Amino acid sequence: MSFRSVAIIGLGLLGGSTGLAVQKFLPDVQTTGWDANPETRARATERGLVHTVHDSAEDAVRDADLVILCVPVGAMGAAAAAIAPALRADVVVSDVGSSKQFVAKALAEALPGVAVIPAHPVAGTERSGPDAGFATLFQKRWCIITPPADADPAQVAALSQFWEALGAKVELMDAQHHDLVLAVTSHLPHLIAYTIVGTADDLEGVTQSEVIKYSAGGFRDFTRIAASDPTMWRDVFLSNKDAVLEMLQRFTEDLTALQRSIRVGDGQALFDQFSRTRAIRRSIIEEGQDDARPDFGRSDHAGS
Amino acid sequence: MSFRSVAIIGLGLLGGSTGLAVQKFLPDVQTTGWDANPETRARATERGLVHTVHDSAEDAVRDADLVILCVPVGAMGAAAAAIAPALRADVVVSDVGSSKQFVAKALAEALPGVAVIPAHPVAGTERSGPDAGFATLFQKRWCIITPPADADPAQVAALSQFWEALGAKVELMDAQHHDLVLAVTSHLPHLIAYTIVGTADDLEGVTQSEVIKYSAGGFRDFTRIAASDPTMWRDVFLSNKDAVLEMLQRFTEDLTALQRSIRVGDGQALFDQFSRTRAIRRSIIEEGQDDARPDFGRSDHAGS
Repeated sequence: MSFRSVAIIGLGLLGGSTGLAVQKFLPDVQTTGWDANPETRARATERGLVHTVHDSAEDAVRDADLVILCVPVGAMGAAAAAIAPALRADVVVSDVGSSKQFVAKALAEALPGVAVIPAHPVAGTERSGPDAGFATLFQKRWCIITPPADADPAQVAALSQFWEALGAKVELMDAQHHDLVLAVTSHLPHLIAYTIVGTADDLEGVTQSEVIKYSAGGFRDFTRIAASDPTMWRDVFLSNKDAVLEMLQRFTEDLTALQRSIRVGDGQALFDQFSRTRAIRRSIIEEGQDDARPDFGRSDHAGS
Repeated sequence: MSFRSVAIIGLGLLGGSTGLAVQKFLPDVQTTGWDANPETRARATERGLVHTVHDSAEDAVRDADLVILCVPVGAMGAAAAAIAPALRADVVVSDVGSSKQFVAKALAEALPGVAVIPAHPVAGTERSGPDAGFATLFQKRWCIITPPADADPAQVAALSQFWEALGAKVELMDAQHHDLVLAVTSHLPHLIAYTIVGTADDLEGVTQSEVIKYSAGGFRDFTRIAASDPTMWRDVFLSNKDAVLEMLQRFTEDLTALQRSIRVGDGQALFDQFSRTRAIRRSIIEEGQDDARPDFGRSDHAGS
């Protein structure tokens, strides 16, 4: 089986990119879409994010054999409830949310009897809204699919093939393990970036203009992800609370240890810690998830 | 006055970039250099980082009217002592170190009676060694000069013009204020990046291969600066201890507050914090210290 008509609910960075990617890489597939915000719908129509932008969520999903919910995690349940009456009997409902146990529960409750297969393409930029998406966002990025225990293997295979067609590499994973892995690779980094940018903003002895001027010393690397969509990230932290708090606890312990090394002047401990982190950077470059070039190779993925 | 012969002690990323930049933007100025490591000297000669690489520090500085020390902060005192016997009477000695009160003290002690004017070009990459430097590293970056109270204004002006010729924007600042500003814009970000990369490496429930695969979710942004030179950064933290510990304390308080918001489910507090950090990102892009393009505009500064 493969999908012939895909409905995208929510036309921001992820939804828009999915719509553009389907049109580019799966030209025979029909795309429809809807967004709660009328201005976003108008802009999505202008940019052609999907073939047809509908004025109601129900109309958007009526003919779809695959529906992908691309709304903040906290809005998944309401979005699912809105489309429920209009879904085809053979539809697969999926999503792109960043925490999977919470989403799986919300969709199962809102869509009893419907085939729900949650997924999470690990891709994004710090931009958001209907102007942010581009067709190549998923190239060489991983898409984690977290099928429930009773999922139909043929539907899981079809969803995997769908994401592979859009350029992603697919991995199947238990939802609980997903939430732990992403807590460290994505949620904790965002929380820390949001914190340090706020800390810098609050200093009384240093002006904001100084922070901005001298940001090339390292600070600017944090500001990129601290510019990510506030609603999306509020929902991520609230919906993956346990794993985030666990990672935060470990991070704080490690930071306290380094703090102590600085206070007592233990240069060897600092040197050892700073040496081993280099090897991880090398592995990330070798795996193709970042690039040693000064532009990080991001120009390869530039869309707009 | 302007400098006619520049000696560079230490031929890594900063020293090599300075040598290449002088040859590109000040073609009438003679450049000499030395590095403690014979292999670095050989590679510096091959790459032509300076006109002449000498086999002793004394020979490298003998004819120079400007000496720039480009060694880790903890090695500044020893490097200054090594060149002291061979310095010209009218020489200006400067440096590129990341903490300025410590360096000012070390150089004043090692070079009594010599004109010392510390400086810090806020520029760099995560690479190090004689292959890392490139001539355009300082373009549009700030160079902070921290003249001692008794500095000769003509010499300060000459050093300012030197860095401006290499493409930098120059700011004069008190050394103590420099150390506070850089603690937040550079030292704290590096410490946090080193910490989180180490935390991720230590998890027992998540494999290192998973951390690497899904790093595009945010983690990879931290690994770039966590790959920076371990010796340099060990010295920075030990030499700017007070300001770093002060910033760390503030950061930890802010992180604890966000942690509490997550624990009690205060979505509004999270949303408010995540919204205000967006504005800072915008300011950094407007000031030209980063770029909204997917490659951050780093391709403009690519050297090798």
